[in-house]
Amino acid sequence: MTDRHTVVFQPSGSRGEVPGGVHLRSAARSLGVEIESVCAEIATCGKCLVLIEDGTRAGVASMIDHVTPMGPAERDFLGKRAGTWERMGYDTDRLRLSCQARVCGDVVVFVPERSRGNRQIVRKEPTDRAIEVRPAVRWYYLELDPPSLEDPLGDVERLAAGLIEARARIDTGAEPTDPGEITVDLPVLRRMAAVLRGGDWKVSVAVRKDREIIDIRPGYHDEAYGAAVDLGSTAIALYLCDLTTGEVVAAESMMNPQTAYGDDVMTRITHQMMDPDGLEALRSAAVGAVNTLLERAIGDREAADVLDVVVVGNTTMHHLFLGLTAQHLGTAPFVPTVQRALDLTAGAVGLAVNPSVNVHLLPIAAGFVGADTTGVLLAEEPHRRDEQRLIIDVGTNAELVLGNREELLCTSTPTGPAFEGAHIEYGMRAAPGAIERVGIDSATLEPSYSVIPDPGGEPGLAKGICGSAIIDAVAEMFRVGIIDAHGRFVEGIESPRIRRGDLGWEYVLAGEEETTIGRDIPITIQDVRQVQLAKAALYAAARVLLREAGLDRPDEIVLAGAFGAGIDPTHALLLGMIPDCPVEAVHAVGNAAGDGARIALLNRYRREEAAEVVGRLRRVELPVDPEFQQEFLAALELPHATHSFSSVGPLLPDA
Amino acid sequence: MTDRHTVVFQPSGSRGEVPGGVHLRSAARSLGVEIESVCAEIATCGKCLVLIEDGTRAGVASMIDHVTPMGPAERDFLGKRAGTWERMGYDTDRLRLSCQARVCGDVVVFVPERSRGNRQIVRKEPTDRAIEVRPAVRWYYLELDPPSLEDPLGDVERLAAGLIEARARIDTGAEPTDPGEITVDLPVLRRMAAVLRGGDWKVSVAVRKDREIIDIRPGYHDEAYGAAVDLGSTAIALYLCDLTTGEVVAAESMMNPQTAYGDDVMTRITHQMMDPDGLEALRSAAVGAVNTLLERAIGDREAADVLDVVVVGNTTMHHLFLGLTAQHLGTAPFVPTVQRALDLTAGAVGLAVNPSVNVHLLPIAAGFVGADTTGVLLAEEPHRRDEQRLIIDVGTNAELVLGNREELLCTSTPTGPAFEGAHIEYGMRAAPGAIERVGIDSATLEPSYSVIPDPGGEPGLAKGICGSAIIDAVAEMFRVGIIDAHGRFVEGIESPRIRRGDLGWEYVLAGEEETTIGRDIPITIQDVRQVQLAKAALYAAARVLLREAGLDRPDEIVLAGAFGAGIDPTHALLLGMIPDCPVEAVHAVGNAAGDGARIALLNRYRREEAAEVVGRLRRVELPVDPEFQQEFLAALELPHATHSFSSVGPLLPDA
Repeated sequence: MTDRHTVVFQPSGSRGEVPGGVHLRSAARSLGVEIESVCAEIATCGKCLVLIEDGTRAGVASMIDHVTPMGPAERDFLGKRAGTWERMGYDTDRLRLSCQARVCGDVVVFVPERSRGNRQIVRKEPTDRAIEVRPAVRWYYLELDPPSLEDPLGDVERLAAGLIEARARIDTGAEPTDPGEITVDLPVLRRMAAVLRGGDWKVSVAVRKDREIIDIRPGYHDEAYGAAVDLGSTAIALYLCDLTTGEVVAAESMMNPQTAYGDDVMTRITHQMMDPDGLEALRSAAVGAVNTLLERAIGDREAADVLDVVVVGNTTMHHLFLGLTAQHLGTAPFVPTVQRALDLTAGAVGLAVNPSVNVHLLPIAAGFVGADTTGVLLAEEPHRRDEQRLIIDVGTNAELVLGNREELLCTSTPTGPAFEGAHIEYGMRAAPGAIERVGIDSATLEPSYSVIPDPGGEPGLAKGICGSAIIDAVAEMFRVGIIDAHGRFVEGIESPRIRRGDLGWEYVLAGEEETTIGRDIPITIQDVRQVQLAKAALYAAARVLLREAGLDRPDEIVLAGAFGAGIDPTHALLLGMIPDCPVEAVHAVGNAAGDGARIALLNRYRREEAAEVVGRLRRVELPVDPEFQQEFLAALELPHATHSFSSVGPLLPDA
Repeated sequence: MTDRHTVVFQPSGSRGEVPGGVHLRSAARSLGVEIESVCAEIATCGKCLVLIEDGTRAGVASMIDHVTPMGPAERDFLGKRAGTWERMGYDTDRLRLSCQARVCGDVVVFVPERSRGNRQIVRKEPTDRAIEVRPAVRWYYLELDPPSLEDPLGDVERLAAGLIEARARIDTGAEPTDPGEITVDLPVLRRMAAVLRGGDWKVSVAVRKDREIIDIRPGYHDEAYGAAVDLGSTAIALYLCDLTTGEVVAAESMMNPQTAYGDDVMTRITHQMMDPDGLEALRSAAVGAVNTLLERAIGDREAADVLDVVVVGNTTMHHLFLGLTAQHLGTAPFVPTVQRALDLTAGAVGLAVNPSVNVHLLPIAAGFVGADTTGVLLAEEPHRRDEQRLIIDVGTNAELVLGNREELLCTSTPTGPAFEGAHIEYGMRAAPGAIERVGIDSATLEPSYSVIPDPGGEPGLAKGICGSAIIDAVAEMFRVGIIDAHGRFVEGIESPRIRRGDLGWEYVLAGEEETTIGRDIPITIQDVRQVQLAKAALYAAARVLLREAGLDRPDEIVLAGAFGAGIDPTHALLLGMIPDCPVEAVHAVGNAAGDGARIALLNRYRREEAAEVVGRLRRVELPVDPEFQQEFLAALELPHATHSFSSVGPLLPDA
């Protein structure tokens, strides 16, 4: 077989031609995509599992029979485990072992997170915050009197009476409850009789909100974990917490597998609308990913000890996770199906824990101000402060909240994908090999940069630029005078780094010898434009909020989100991306949405607070705001056409 | 093939030898078991579906391969419909078409209700009772303002606000509710956006208890049905009611398919304990039967319009229906898993209606005083009366309630199966061909009797005696002096009807020429013993209750249940089966448990009343009562060794 076929690996998008007959796993490696394997390619470890896309994707007509049919070993291996993978959300008809399937036509292959050899670093670490631990679920150990002919009370009634007695003894501060108000759902009812008798009437019960029995075990048991889940469009993070100590016992994250259907929420909404099975595919991808993270985080612990789950995410992620249509989130007036906080069972949602466990989703303020923003509010607490705090959660879409204990305003604006490294010539996510920090020497115009280490690669070699580095680079180019306030390359500067490329003027950040891709990595005039458009949208949104609040500037600016953590505050100010504010009053807080999920997980009363705060948010609609367009146009200039940026005054080219 | 094999058909128990190679359906007919067929035995109608038992049952080692293997026509027919039957609760591995499968070994065949040619008459008709209709679920029609950029409220929030407005306008008397308290479950959430927009923001919502949205339809819709289900050990009845008018629009009943696992609750409990899959088999049989009845009752109506379900049944049926172990109901201290009323979703229970629909199970007073008794209480309302009412629900087990608005006592006693026609030489259920009424002429000692008409048989010919006729016969034998107060045949009576049979003395009720079985049908001395044992248990239980209440006799006696409806009050008194009481104060009320289910279905407030009344019931435990055994022994005599029965005094032999 000497014919050649186009092969694309998702979600990385790596693409190339390979000769027919090559194993998918070898093809992947030849294109720089690492796929796991433990069993030396004899179809017994299953680490190299991939999904064959069916239909036209990434411009390639990919069919299931564009790879060779299964042999007996692969058929046997996959057949035996079909149930497991189905539960994990995989479409089993499309599953193949990449060490067995050979290319025999053009094909698009999705490599699930579990199979990737070189997993991406996702900057979603739980930050240290003091959280008062008052969980929704706790264990009670009860020693009950066995029934007798004189006392033949039903099991539930006996247990409820015992629980109320124990609660009073422990004094949990719970409201008094009638035994009749203690609830038990059907799965627990079904095993209750056996557990009570197996434990000789000494049992532990997991009780939610002081009155819902969601688990029962013989004897003494006190392990209780909860999962805080942050459903990002790009990455999904899960923090497994000990519900007694509040400690994070495991933090796991992975790329959102929905990226196979589109990098941003709008393309996923489009996918849902175009494909009749699209919503279910997106839902099961998200639920499957959370189940994968749960499995990893649980490790050697008992899955049955996971007794509570809290989920945050933007409105689209929230809806897709629950199987609610996201269609109406894509067009005005951007109406969600539901805004309020939801309490659903793990069974209904499809999470692989005890089906009686509650899954709490924080409330949503609006179509584009989602439960992730609610999480940020819980973590940042502007409603408890006097200072006027501007909180910006930056991503493909930016959500902004401004205010203090008196009033809270919110809005959102699409910023385009530039901040996430997309639509940038050599842009990439914050993954190994990405340039993440950039400085430019004002005398020599020579750059200095740092690269996210690639465990498998040569240290220091770059393969692209991530969002924070693009901000750095454009801000530095402005500061040292390579570009002017209009974002144009200043003519007549002598530097080997500045040249005319195919797309117009560009500044060479890394020469080909400094890269793993064998090509120069420049910042192009187009890249500068993308940054201007993105920062102008963000700035204009902030201005409208300030105007609504009757303020000239905020007292503090909080940059939330994984991307926000990477932004250099000085550079953000230099670009005029955020309103003027003392540099030392600009803070990056990392994954505040995830922190908010953890707070809500560990303290049930903070969930009520979240609902209350979201109810008080005043939403400012930018598309209907007459000044937004004007602000946007003026903000295209660096740092701004009319507003002064005194905070970084000495650094400005004019200074 | 001239070999012969033993074939047993369940649930009737008909048994016989047939030559090898005979079709199951022909074998059934030869043993008097009719199986449906519409397609002239060419494997296309499926009406003759049967299940082949696997393992040893009814003393026969039955194997799936004791019938001939499937041919292509049968395989094709069954294969295509496997999903349907699986949903109906059948084990598809054991399904065969009885027009195709031929006998080639000993085999036990279960004939599902749907396949029976000559279905049993089940005396479970809804009786006329005035019920105030205040259902738990009703439709609201809402015309909502479409969302706009100025008013982009979420769908649920918009709907909840509209519902509260509509409720206030209609003035349903519901307590004021905050929009946040209106709940919507996940299946409804998932279709809400499409329905709202499809209906142009004019929708109908089905609302439970004024606050739970369980269905949504575009435009105007007001059809609402509810199902009241009476899970009897022997028969299951379902009344489909219009929730607006309260009218019964369809009443359906069938034999309880659990009879395949045992005629009474004790043998089913034993089955559950002996067979690891027994509980699930019993559960799915019961749920499958209710789904069959639902399907029949719904007919041309929309299944989605069934919006509420109420279920009653004895404690064992209640537990088995929910998949709760019945094991501990079989041994002292007879403890149920749960006594309180339960509200579960149809989805969790497995009923084939909208999964969001609530299934309400009335509360249980004790292991042997179940939700069926609660239904009887709702229907008979002793707690609203001044008179001391004794309510007896007679079956294999008898539940007794005594009292009035001041106090209510309850107890239960096993009476043995004699009252249901079992353990009686020629006993049978109240089915076509059963003698149901008996009188004996005191001068000639000749009997007169009536037979339940058999549409297919010759009028008047009998094939057995049902429970009510056994009471009649023994009472009449006593009245005319054939047996004495000890239940012994009086010596020296000259009558061709009285003779010595294999089992001792007997009275020939029907000569062989009057039967379809070609044999005489006598009442034997053993039958008289069985009646004495049963009536003594019932009477002794009533006496203990009367003593506890400080009463000598009740003001009224109510005989509930299908069997109770057939009992002649005079004969019951003549036998001393019930305490002495004026004959005109003894009433048979038919299926009061089913009526109670209908009442609870149509009036949600009566559910609260039921819980309250059950909470007030004082349980009297007979096994620990020192006087019960003495009462029992004295009550073996007819009518009783020491208590006088003045109500039927003139009829007593001594008079």
